[in-house]
Amino acid sequence: MPKRSHIHLGAFPLDVGHHIAAWRHPDVPADGGSTLSFYRSLAQTAERGTLDMIFFGDQMAAQYPDDETVGRTSRVTRLEPTTLLAALAASTSHLGLVGTVSTSYFEPFHVARKFASLDQLSGGRSGWNVVTSFNDREAQNFNQQTVRSHAQRYERAQEFVDVVQALWDSWEEDAFLRDKASGLFFDPNKLHVQEHRGTYFTTRGPLNIPRSPQGQPVIVQAGSSSDGRHFAATRAEVVFTAQPSLEAARAFYADVKAQAAATGRDPAHLKIMPGVMTFIGATAAEAREKYERLQDLIEPEVGWIVLKRHLGIDVSHLGPDSPFPQLALTPDFPSRQKLLIDMAVKERLTVRQFYQKVVGARGHLLAIGTAAQVADQMEAWVDGDGADGFNLMLPWLPAALDDVVDQLVPELRRRGRFRHAYRGKTLRDHLGLPIPANLNLPQPLEQELP
Amino acid sequence: MPKRSHIHLGAFPLDVGHHIAAWRHPDVPADGGSTLSFYRSLAQTAERGTLDMIFFGDQMAAQYPDDETVGRTSRVTRLEPTTLLAALAASTSHLGLVGTVSTSYFEPFHVARKFASLDQLSGGRSGWNVVTSFNDREAQNFNQQTVRSHAQRYERAQEFVDVVQALWDSWEEDAFLRDKASGLFFDPNKLHVQEHRGTYFTTRGPLNIPRSPQGQPVIVQAGSSSDGRHFAATRAEVVFTAQPSLEAARAFYADVKAQAAATGRDPAHLKIMPGVMTFIGATAAEAREKYERLQDLIEPEVGWIVLKRHLGIDVSHLGPDSPFPQLALTPDFPSRQKLLIDMAVKERLTVRQFYQKVVGARGHLLAIGTAAQVADQMEAWVDGDGADGFNLMLPWLPAALDDVVDQLVPELRRRGRFRHAYRGKTLRDHLGLPIPANLNLPQPLEQELP
Repeated sequence: MPKRSHIHLGAFPLDVGHHIAAWRHPDVPADGGSTLSFYRSLAQTAERGTLDMIFFGDQMAAQYPDDETVGRTSRVTRLEPTTLLAALAASTSHLGLVGTVSTSYFEPFHVARKFASLDQLSGGRSGWNVVTSFNDREAQNFNQQTVRSHAQRYERAQEFVDVVQALWDSWEEDAFLRDKASGLFFDPNKLHVQEHRGTYFTTRGPLNIPRSPQGQPVIVQAGSSSDGRHFAATRAEVVFTAQPSLEAARAFYADVKAQAAATGRDPAHLKIMPGVMTFIGATAAEAREKYERLQDLIEPEVGWIVLKRHLGIDVSHLGPDSPFPQLALTPDFPSRQKLLIDMAVKERLTVRQFYQKVVGARGHLLAIGTAAQVADQMEAWVDGDGADGFNLMLPWLPAALDDVVDQLVPELRRRGRFRHAYRGKTLRDHLGLPIPANLNLPQPLEQELP
Repeated sequence: MPKRSHIHLGAFPLDVGHHIAAWRHPDVPADGGSTLSFYRSLAQTAERGTLDMIFFGDQMAAQYPDDETVGRTSRVTRLEPTTLLAALAASTSHLGLVGTVSTSYFEPFHVARKFASLDQLSGGRSGWNVVTSFNDREAQNFNQQTVRSHAQRYERAQEFVDVVQALWDSWEEDAFLRDKASGLFFDPNKLHVQEHRGTYFTTRGPLNIPRSPQGQPVIVQAGSSSDGRHFAATRAEVVFTAQPSLEAARAFYADVKAQAAATGRDPAHLKIMPGVMTFIGATAAEAREKYERLQDLIEPEVGWIVLKRHLGIDVSHLGPDSPFPQLALTPDFPSRQKLLIDMAVKERLTVRQFYQKVVGARGHLLAIGTAAQVADQMEAWVDGDGADGFNLMLPWLPAALDDVVDQLVPELRRRGRFRHAYRGKTLRDHLGLPIPANLNLPQPLEQELP
């Protein structure tokens, strides 16, 4: 008998939608990505659907002028995630609030404080998506020419998270007496100065914010490399990952859960949530029409750039309706790109069909169909040990989120796979994660006595 | 005839009140400083009173264990100001939102982005209180043992603000076309990469947030040293300052405004707002009772610490009700401290009376009286060229803010010195500050042709 576990769902908006042409859709407010009213409305819809959380990525650079779409992308601007999430904390009461902050360009004290503050403001609903940042354009905004090596970035990230988590535990839960009669505001014995001297950071501590209402903010992570998986297995409580097929998802899921178990963690306390881009309709045909409507809004100027990024070659001399040719490739042409080109030729795709196919869901699961069909697919992944839930990469907004909340969520509820109402108030409550023990309290003895 | 200019008012909460014993007052929610509901209620009261802004200081360290009050202070924790202000942006519609962020422990790209984001979220209501941070406890949370020298801190701050302001101007106001038909989201000619290579910072730019709805966030500053005044005169649009008397305020006001004029600025575009701690009552006696009630809540354990800080000597062996003695002081005893001791002896103060007097308003104006009396004092300062308005250092909350909004504001309105309703939507509108020209646009020729 298959397990019938709860499916976790996060809403992941990116500007006005994950689809590259979302802003051109007639139903989309093209300026939404810069306004609180747009995001507030999304967060309130997500909360109406009792979703676990809303999730924001980040990039600390405008990708310009590298982005040769010269004016054709809506993604050159992006609100700073922690201020945006704080504004949404004031506009919601239950929804989890997860934001991306890099370990490469901040100091641990800042990050500990941001999320501790967001957690106080939201009553224990915050999560930190830890990224190490691999983009040189970001490095160049912070006194560097290029990013550090992959290994160095992960080494720094490990120490960074160590320091942040120790700072979060500066105060014991019951440190604050606030006893007006005696005049004692806090118990000094329950404050722990978190002095740290390491390779990358020296921090005296303590943090000047009480311990989180949920113990600590939730650690989210999205690395897929070997270092990234190790980091996930040892530190993450939610893993966001790109898995295009159930087969790939099962392999990733088994690997990360096994690594977590090997370090002594309970694998159930690490939730794996692959990205999924959903197009949901009353009929399968309607869902397909929604998808194609957006695909048709990709202009050739943008399509050529997309192909150039994926293939490494400029094909802008080819008309969008001409068949993609078998190019003469040099022997050192990257094999992954060659596979793509062979596919286009074999399937007799036009240039337009080729770039439409490549844009797709960017390596994530693409789910197009009725709510029942999408729910079937989600159940298959969760029951097949490929996922504990999904991070919804909503293609165009607010419609794609409305479809989730108004069609998919009721379907999952009917199947007993999704909550009808929030049972708790914190992000840990929604995710079924335990409150972590305060690192500064005496821990239970782990070794046996001789 | 005296000028009858508008008086600007900012609300400056510090935890549950600026008075050291505020948290012990029976009407004060002692845990307020950690909750959104407390600050939201304050912000909404300030907005009901059509105040110009709410202002938050900051400190990136818990002052512990330096603070020998060992558990008797409520100020060991403090929410991070930009996340707090973002939450308040979502809870208000007009109130200006000013937060303190240090130039010593951040990078300009971060700060440009935080305030640009807060400005988008709030529709143009943000202000940045620029501080250079002089506290070693903060430095120790950021890989340093001590703060940089005063001169270095100000040199860094100048470059920091240069970079931030250039980044804020990355996009021209009308850069975003968002033309769905043509597919052009922005005009690349109206995007300006703000590459900077300086002494302290290298930043490529551009900022990935549109220009502010008010042009740029307002620059606020609070330095009183010679470097601080120069910085204020050249950069600040609001100056927060501690002036205990009209005489001192007039000298400061004249100096900073003259320095601003000397750099070619319009002195009217620099608003000087001294701090004031108000105790307002229906009668003068009631106001005095409010003051004394808080003073009586200062315990000897805290009073001794306060005296130790101000005098540099421990007097905890003296009972609170014993007269303060003429101590035998060494010849190198600091003269400022000796003046205080002489005053205590001359006025025959008990130890309790001495520490109550020293706590006072911490160098700021202390205004105790009826709304009419406090309004008289404010008018005298503004008409006497000592101030353009005041930053209200509310002694205990929420009551002291309620008194301002329910008693002082109506009095100032009756006198024609305060707005009855907001006339604009941005902080610049409230302060009467112009929208700054975009630094990247062609500027009017300043030199004469030969």
